[in-house]
Amino acid sequence: MRALTFDGRQARVAERPDPEPADGHAIVGVHLAGVCNTDLEIARGYMGFEGILGHEFVGVVEDGPEVWRGARVVGEINFACGACAACQSGLGRHCPTRQVMGIQGADGAFAERVRVPVANLHRVPEAVDDEDAVFTEPLAAAFEILEQLPDAAQRRCVVLGDGKLGLLVAQVLAGAGARVRAVGRHPDKLAILERRGIETQLAGDFRPEAEHADLVVEATGSARGFEQAIAATRPRGTLVLKSTIADRPAVDLAPIVIHEIQVLGSRCGPFAPALDALARDRVDVRSLVSETLPLARADTALERATAPGAVKILVDCQTG
Amino acid sequence: MRALTFDGRQARVAERPDPEPADGHAIVGVHLAGVCNTDLEIARGYMGFEGILGHEFVGVVEDGPEVWRGARVVGEINFACGACAACQSGLGRHCPTRQVMGIQGADGAFAERVRVPVANLHRVPEAVDDEDAVFTEPLAAAFEILEQLPDAAQRRCVVLGDGKLGLLVAQVLAGAGARVRAVGRHPDKLAILERRGIETQLAGDFRPEAEHADLVVEATGSARGFEQAIAATRPRGTLVLKSTIADRPAVDLAPIVIHEIQVLGSRCGPFAPALDALARDRVDVRSLVSETLPLARADTALERATAPGAVKILVDCQTG
Repeated sequence: MRALTFDGRQARVAERPDPEPADGHAIVGVHLAGVCNTDLEIARGYMGFEGILGHEFVGVVEDGPEVWRGARVVGEINFACGACAACQSGLGRHCPTRQVMGIQGADGAFAERVRVPVANLHRVPEAVDDEDAVFTEPLAAAFEILEQLPDAAQRRCVVLGDGKLGLLVAQVLAGAGARVRAVGRHPDKLAILERRGIETQLAGDFRPEAEHADLVVEATGSARGFEQAIAATRPRGTLVLKSTIADRPAVDLAPIVIHEIQVLGSRCGPFAPALDALARDRVDVRSLVSETLPLARADTALERATAPGAVKILVDCQTG
Repeated sequence: MRALTFDGRQARVAERPDPEPADGHAIVGVHLAGVCNTDLEIARGYMGFEGILGHEFVGVVEDGPEVWRGARVVGEINFACGACAACQSGLGRHCPTRQVMGIQGADGAFAERVRVPVANLHRVPEAVDDEDAVFTEPLAAAFEILEQLPDAAQRRCVVLGDGKLGLLVAQVLAGAGARVRAVGRHPDKLAILERRGIETQLAGDFRPEAEHADLVVEATGSARGFEQAIAATRPRGTLVLKSTIADRPAVDLAPIVIHEIQVLGSRCGPFAPALDALARDRVDVRSLVSETLPLARADTALERATAPGAVKILVDCQTG
């Protein structure tokens, strides 16, 4: 089959053997897969991953347990052992021996077919098109904030960054009832939120020191964003670190201590509320799609995702 | 009166006018005052403070409201406005217009006398000697962790750093019932904890990656300590930042996101449980005293506090 592979140096589309069926696993024929910033980082050597890239997908089960065959599915990306203390306490997403699809030890979804543990599969409701369903994984990451901070809906929130994740986080928090302002550099991206009635602000007008926000979500992935997020958080407030910040940012951490700020790392999230939100049309993900490229040009899709102004690039894995 | 002053360049003992009485304030004749790392940072220019240094003290009220005269007292260091939203919600320690004794806008306690709002005073129980009472303020900072994390007592804790604050934090957590291991570089300092039945470990033997601790308290004040603390915290665990880290440490923050760690800044704390612990002899603070110098040599006291092996240096403000 055709797949977008990374050999430690270069990402390129190549022929690969089909994934082997295995007990407790399904072979999913991938319809659409989305490019995430993590894919871009991996293609720069982050995590030391080698194999097929991609972890955001929707497809149909071609092989596996009878009950799953033919089902249109999305899949959680952390392949947990199911037996360790973390897994037993419901924290399979933090299983220390987990593989992570397209990131660590398991082939990913920029391919005609991908193998996924059936424990990780979720059926896609009929009301949700492929073009929406492919956002389930990043949307779940936004819902993770609500799982970690059940009272987020009662807070005054500032979301920093109008990239893919920031746009989803702002919608999820606003949808939960929080007062949200999204801060970004791109009027066209912020317009997606304005159409949903969410307050926005250009980064140049943002005055972190005047904010005193209850909850700040850092989704810029930059050291400067992190420092602004610290400054914008009120004493005893919460700063959610949603983006990994590349390199080793030199950041003044003293305000975290002085203002007793809670900095909360936040990664993968629950699929069920994400699928539910898509089914009820409570988030606009479709406007985030900048371009859809065929699998044969998946390497170009990675490049396009780095272009200024690009939001979500999709790869159509059914067309060569 | 005599006082240890800082003029923005140099800390030295000098003659200063006595503090003026004021409504709602007491003039406290200082018995003992303790040197804190913050004093050392301020004497290097941190916070841009100028005035009389020192914020850990015990003394007797010489002037002020009748009900306070003659009382032996300790005092909270944040002088809050009492009227703003933070103050009204009980967060006077975070009042945005607060003055902080010996740190920001208010003269400190390395002096014969210091002026303190009566709202900040706490009577010292008779059972608590001056030599113990002078530890109330840093001990309260250790108790702050229990206020922020009421379930800390149920956790497996690692305390990094065997300086003044680390030694107090380890005792407070262990006293609350937590399983604690203290990690440090100084066998003689760790011995203070061992005598209280607290497990200790030399920093050279510490393997952060093998810890998976529920709760890690960073009290080294170093970038390396912070990175080790991140590595030692289990997924979804808590890292308490108890020390401000000087400069702008270049730290890899990605594990905070990947492991969804909660980083919690922690500063000043409640005096009541600290005084209670001292009255019941539940913490050994006396063993932390390395040396007591007279006020006339308070500048030397600052220097001594930087010496390797030094723990707490006290200044006797009643002897010239």
